[in-house]
Amino acid sequence: MRMVDLIEKKRDGKSLTKEEIDYIVTAYTDGSIPDYQMSALLMAIYYVDMTDEEITNLTLAMANSGEVIDLSSIEGIKVDKHSTGGVGDTTTLILAPLVASVGVPVAKMSGRGLGYTGGTLDKLEAIPGFKIEIPEEEFIRLVNESKMAVIGQSGDLAPADKKLYALRDVTATVSSIPLIASSIMSKKIAAGADAIVLDVTTGDGAFMKNIDDAKRLAKTMVRIGKLANRQTMAVISDMSQPLGEAIGNSLEVVEAIETLQGKGPEDLTEMCYVLGSQMVVLAKKADSIEEAREMLSEALHSGKALSKFRELVVNQGGDASVIDEPDKILTARYEVELPAKSSGVVTKLVANELGIAAMMLGAGRKTKEEDIDHAVGIKLHKKVGDTVAEGESLLTIYSNTEAIDEVIALIEAHIEIGDTGEEPPLIHDMITE
Amino acid sequence: MRMVDLIEKKRDGKSLTKEEIDYIVTAYTDGSIPDYQMSALLMAIYYVDMTDEEITNLTLAMANSGEVIDLSSIEGIKVDKHSTGGVGDTTTLILAPLVASVGVPVAKMSGRGLGYTGGTLDKLEAIPGFKIEIPEEEFIRLVNESKMAVIGQSGDLAPADKKLYALRDVTATVSSIPLIASSIMSKKIAAGADAIVLDVTTGDGAFMKNIDDAKRLAKTMVRIGKLANRQTMAVISDMSQPLGEAIGNSLEVVEAIETLQGKGPEDLTEMCYVLGSQMVVLAKKADSIEEAREMLSEALHSGKALSKFRELVVNQGGDASVIDEPDKILTARYEVELPAKSSGVVTKLVANELGIAAMMLGAGRKTKEEDIDHAVGIKLHKKVGDTVAEGESLLTIYSNTEAIDEVIALIEAHIEIGDTGEEPPLIHDMITE
Repeated sequence: MRMVDLIEKKRDGKSLTKEEIDYIVTAYTDGSIPDYQMSALLMAIYYVDMTDEEITNLTLAMANSGEVIDLSSIEGIKVDKHSTGGVGDTTTLILAPLVASVGVPVAKMSGRGLGYTGGTLDKLEAIPGFKIEIPEEEFIRLVNESKMAVIGQSGDLAPADKKLYALRDVTATVSSIPLIASSIMSKKIAAGADAIVLDVTTGDGAFMKNIDDAKRLAKTMVRIGKLANRQTMAVISDMSQPLGEAIGNSLEVVEAIETLQGKGPEDLTEMCYVLGSQMVVLAKKADSIEEAREMLSEALHSGKALSKFRELVVNQGGDASVIDEPDKILTARYEVELPAKSSGVVTKLVANELGIAAMMLGAGRKTKEEDIDHAVGIKLHKKVGDTVAEGESLLTIYSNTEAIDEVIALIEAHIEIGDTGEEPPLIHDMITE
Repeated sequence: MRMVDLIEKKRDGKSLTKEEIDYIVTAYTDGSIPDYQMSALLMAIYYVDMTDEEITNLTLAMANSGEVIDLSSIEGIKVDKHSTGGVGDTTTLILAPLVASVGVPVAKMSGRGLGYTGGTLDKLEAIPGFKIEIPEEEFIRLVNESKMAVIGQSGDLAPADKKLYALRDVTATVSSIPLIASSIMSKKIAAGADAIVLDVTTGDGAFMKNIDDAKRLAKTMVRIGKLANRQTMAVISDMSQPLGEAIGNSLEVVEAIETLQGKGPEDLTEMCYVLGSQMVVLAKKADSIEEAREMLSEALHSGKALSKFRELVVNQGGDASVIDEPDKILTARYEVELPAKSSGVVTKLVANELGIAAMMLGAGRKTKEEDIDHAVGIKLHKKVGDTVAEGESLLTIYSNTEAIDEVIALIEAHIEIGDTGEEPPLIHDMITE
C-alpha cells in the first residue's frame, strides 16, 4: 500500500477500507508515514467526510494503537461519561459518586485538561492529600469494593490519537466531525468503557458553536459507538452560559459538595440527573429513565451520594474534613465583587469569555507545562434570566493577585443586562440513534 | 503571521493576500514552515481553488524564490515556448531554429525530463559532442550573434517550486490547476521570458486527460501571464496519439532534421507552424499570424531553418555531419517490426502506453539518477485514420536488448484496428485571454 494512493482515493471522495485505515494508523504511529502525508489526508477528510464504517474503523485502529485497559475484572457494566467541554462543568465530580452510590461501577480515568480550568484530576487535587497516582491493581480493587475510583490517564492510551491531535492542531483540521468523533471515541474505548454517555455541549463556551453541528457530532458518535459494540447515547446540552455557578478548581469542588448535599445550583443538579439516569439505565441498574432518576434523587437526598464522595476522598488519601468545611480550600487572597451597572434582567453571560477570564486568573493552563492555581476562579451570583438591581453583585472574582483590571474588563464586556430575558434551555436534544 | 491561521483562511474559502503568499513561499523555502503545514494548505487549495490574483502572486513569489535570469542584454523580445508534455513531442528541436531563422531570439534553458523520453537536453546530447554546459556569457553572446543557444537549466531556478513539486508528488496534490499553472509560469518567468507560448496538451498521453481541464489550465496561465506582464497565449493540442512518428531521443533528432528539411510528418510540421507563428507575432517580427506563417514556411523551404540548426550544432560543439547522415545516430542493436494482425483502419494508438513502452526500452527515466539510452525508441509507420493491410508493419521498435516481449505486449494492447476511423484534430482550441 502506498500512502499517496490512499490520499488520492480519499481526495476523490472514495471510502477507505478497514485494511487501509489500519495500515494508515499503524504506519503513522510508528513514523513510517510522515506528518506531511498525514496532514494532506486530514485536509481531504475535512472536505470529503467519512462514512460511519470508516469512522468506526479509524476509532478502533486508534484505540488499538496503544494500551487498551482491561476492566473485565470489575463486576458490572462499566459506563463512562464524556463531555466535549464547557465552562464551569462540575458534573463529573458529582455524577461519579452519585451513580456509584446506586451501584454503577465507576472506574474513572481522567486527564489534566488544557483550557478554562483544570481537568477532573486537577479539581480533585484541590482537596489536600488527594492522590490520583495509584497502582492499577489498587484502582481495580477500589472500584470492586467501593464502586468508585479515579486514576490519572496512562500516557499510552491511544497514542495514534495523541499524535494525530497534535498534527490537527497546527494544520487547521481540528474542526472535522469524523476526526473529532473518532478522537473522543478511541480514548473512551481504550479506557475500557462498555457503554458511553456523551454530553455534547453547544454554544459560545463549547467546541460546537451551533446546535446543528453538535447534533451531527452526537449522531456520528452514537452510530459509531454502536458499530463498535458500545451502547452509546448523547445529550446535546447548552453552553451559551457557564453550567452551575462556579468556574475554578476549588470553587467547583465546593459546588460539587453542595450539590451532593442537595443544595447545588438547579441547572447543574438537573444536568446530573439527566446524565446520571442515562448511565444507570445503560449499566442495567434500572429499567427506565424514570426509575433511574428516582433512585438518584433518593441517593442525593438521603446523603448516600455524599457518603460515597467522602469514601472516595478517604480511599485516595484526601482530607475528608473539606467536605464538612469546604471553605477551607477557598484560599484565594482577594475576593472582588462585580456590581451590576444597571437594574434589569441578565440577558448575556458569555461562557467562552468567562472561561478565559478564569484562565487569566490562573485556574486553567494554556500549555501542558503550566501550573494551575486551585484557589482562583469566578463564582456567579446571577445567571441569564435572573433579575438584578443596580449595584448588586453579579459575581465574585477569587484572585491571588491584585492586578485584575484586564480580567474585569473582559468579564464586563461579556455580560449584558436588558429589560427582558429568559433562562436558556438546559438540554437541546437527546440522541440515541 | 501564523501558518495555521493562513491554512484555516484558505480552508474556509477566503483569498490569501500578496503579503500572506509571499510569507508562505519565503518561509517554506527557508524551512521555517514545515512540510506538514504546507501539504495541508496544498490540499485546501486543491478543493477551494485560488483567484487569478492569488495564483499570480504565488507564481511571482516562486519565481523570485531563487535566481531570476536577466536576459536584458539580449536584443529583442525573448519568447519562450512551453509544452505541458506529451509523447514524441519533437517541437522544441524544430521550433527553436525555425523561429531563430526569422530573427526571433531563442535563449532556451532546458531541463532533463522525467518520463517517456528525455528532455530537450537529452535529445540534443544524442548528437555526438553537443555541449549544453556552456558559461552564461557565452550563452548570451551566442543568442545575440546567432539568435539561438540552448543551455542546461540552473539548479537554482524557482527553488520554491522544486520543493513544492516534490511535496505535491507524495501528497496527491499534483493535479490542481492553480498549482500546475503557478509551477509552470514561475519557471518560465524565472528563466527570463518576456512572452510565453504555451502548448497545453490533452488526451491519454498528456497531463490533462480532457479538453475542459486543459482549457481551464490554459486560460488560467494566460490570465496570470498577463497579470505578471508577460504576453501569453496557449494552444490546446491533441495528445491522444503521439505527435509525429518518432518516440525516442535519437529518433526525434532525426525526425527534427527531416522536418527542417520539409520532409517531416504532416502533424508535427503543422504544429510547428501553429506554435511558431504565435512566437513570431509575440516577438513582434510579424504583424499577423498569416504573415508569420508565410515567413516560417519560406524559412523551412529555403533551407534557412536547417542552416540555423546546423549553426546551433556547430556553435555548441556537436558533430554537424549527423545532419547530412542522420542514420549515424540510429545505433540500436535491434530493429523489430510490428505487423498488423488484420486489415483495416487504425482507430487507436494510445499515446500514454506507447510512451511507457519507449521508457521500458530505455528512452526515458523514472528517477533523476537513471541513465537514458539515446538510441532506442519507437518509429510509427501508421497513425490513427491510416489504412493498413494485414501483415504490414505498424511501427519499428529500436532496442538494445532482445527481450522485448513485454514491450510488444503493451504496445499491442493499445493499438486498435477497425473498419472506419478518422484522424483526430491536431488543435482543439487557441486561448488568448
